[in-house]
Amino acid sequence: MYKLHYAPDNASLIVRLVLEELAVPYDCVLVDRSKNEQRSPAYLALNPQGLIPVLETPQGPMFETGAILLWLSETHGYMAPPPRHPERAMFLKWLFFLSNAVHTDLRQMFYTEKYVGSEPIAISGYRELVKERLRKNLSAFDGLVGTAPAWLGASEPSVLDYYLAACLRWLVLYPIDDPSWFNLSETPNLLTLARNLEIRPAVISAAEAEGLGLTPFSNPTYACPSEGGAT
Amino acid sequence: MYKLHYAPDNASLIVRLVLEELAVPYDCVLVDRSKNEQRSPAYLALNPQGLIPVLETPQGPMFETGAILLWLSETHGYMAPPPRHPERAMFLKWLFFLSNAVHTDLRQMFYTEKYVGSEPIAISGYRELVKERLRKNLSAFDGLVGTAPAWLGASEPSVLDYYLAACLRWLVLYPIDDPSWFNLSETPNLLTLARNLEIRPAVISAAEAEGLGLTPFSNPTYACPSEGGAT
Repeated sequence: MYKLHYAPDNASLIVRLVLEELAVPYDCVLVDRSKNEQRSPAYLALNPQGLIPVLETPQGPMFETGAILLWLSETHGYMAPPPRHPERAMFLKWLFFLSNAVHTDLRQMFYTEKYVGSEPIAISGYRELVKERLRKNLSAFDGLVGTAPAWLGASEPSVLDYYLAACLRWLVLYPIDDPSWFNLSETPNLLTLARNLEIRPAVISAAEAEGLGLTPFSNPTYACPSEGGAT
Repeated sequence: MYKLHYAPDNASLIVRLVLEELAVPYDCVLVDRSKNEQRSPAYLALNPQGLIPVLETPQGPMFETGAILLWLSETHGYMAPPPRHPERAMFLKWLFFLSNAVHTDLRQMFYTEKYVGSEPIAISGYRELVKERLRKNLSAFDGLVGTAPAWLGASEPSVLDYYLAACLRWLVLYPIDDPSWFNLSETPNLLTLARNLEIRPAVISAAEAEGLGLTPFSNPTYACPSEGGAT
């Protein structure tokens, strides 16, 4: 049995979406950010970085969203081209890129002060460069849709589809003091991908659990969860 | 046949080390940074980010160092715990972490102006925070040595061993205007790991190809390559 340490609408959402899609049982443990529980000794023992999520597995506690998604796909045998599949190389390349470039940029844009200090000018200047990179990188993913039938926008969703859809959501909603800088019409193919996911039971169930409404990717609103909070 | 697009002592070094260790044939193509070839249309067609390396494979051109290493290990069947191995989860977690946290921080510290602009105060402030994170994260890897016999410091090296060893080298040598901020005695277990790698034919061969001397990890000096340059 898996145990997902989560906060609503945090990166743990991606893991929850995939667990739901895989239809494997899992328990949830709220990391209460209002009490800074991600810095508690118990949580730091699971993930010394204090980042959310952690997935407890029979092989030990995992962090790093991309690693968790990849391992789940290997362990359960779907949601990604398996090792030695002819599209494995391209899948891994774009998974690492999403994790490394896009996800890292999102984190640096939401928590900019952790990276450049609290000077407003430093924060806004830094964010402008991050926004430019994010626009370019999301556009690259948008251009991939239709070219990668084994792992992007296919009839059976991949871990990368869910990872991207969640990123779209956050692009629209954050930073909380400067939202709506990104419009989903900039990436029309990803928007279609996101809409196709939203009708799946996995998404409906995950969105209900974290209070994300009926259009969590294509027309997102801030989470209204029954427990905990996003920040 | 693989084709590695490289510049001496760039991240392509990690891929070269692994190709040498796997003893698979590969061709090398210099990306001449003095001519900014990484921004040429031909290179951007392989990697729109203009980052080095690219490895051309039968499945297409790959970028993202971590993805390349993982794919090579899967394709050739060693240098990592394979899928469904009991240590696969921990291996993937730390591989993504090295790629996402450590490698990203190294890049941001070497090319700080790309991230915060050219103000010296902004650069030095940013770098101090990056150094703090790097120290903490390298120390975490140092603490792992001896706990992960399948993929860290084992008798047969893993892709992660080589990835770490190359990072150690760059920690000591860069940023070029502020080197030696990191001392390898801070991570004694990784230093031993690095010394054990240096006697391997794969390292001797890669170091010779890129002009890295006899102690490229444990006592690094700047590259004196026969073609191209590191910056």
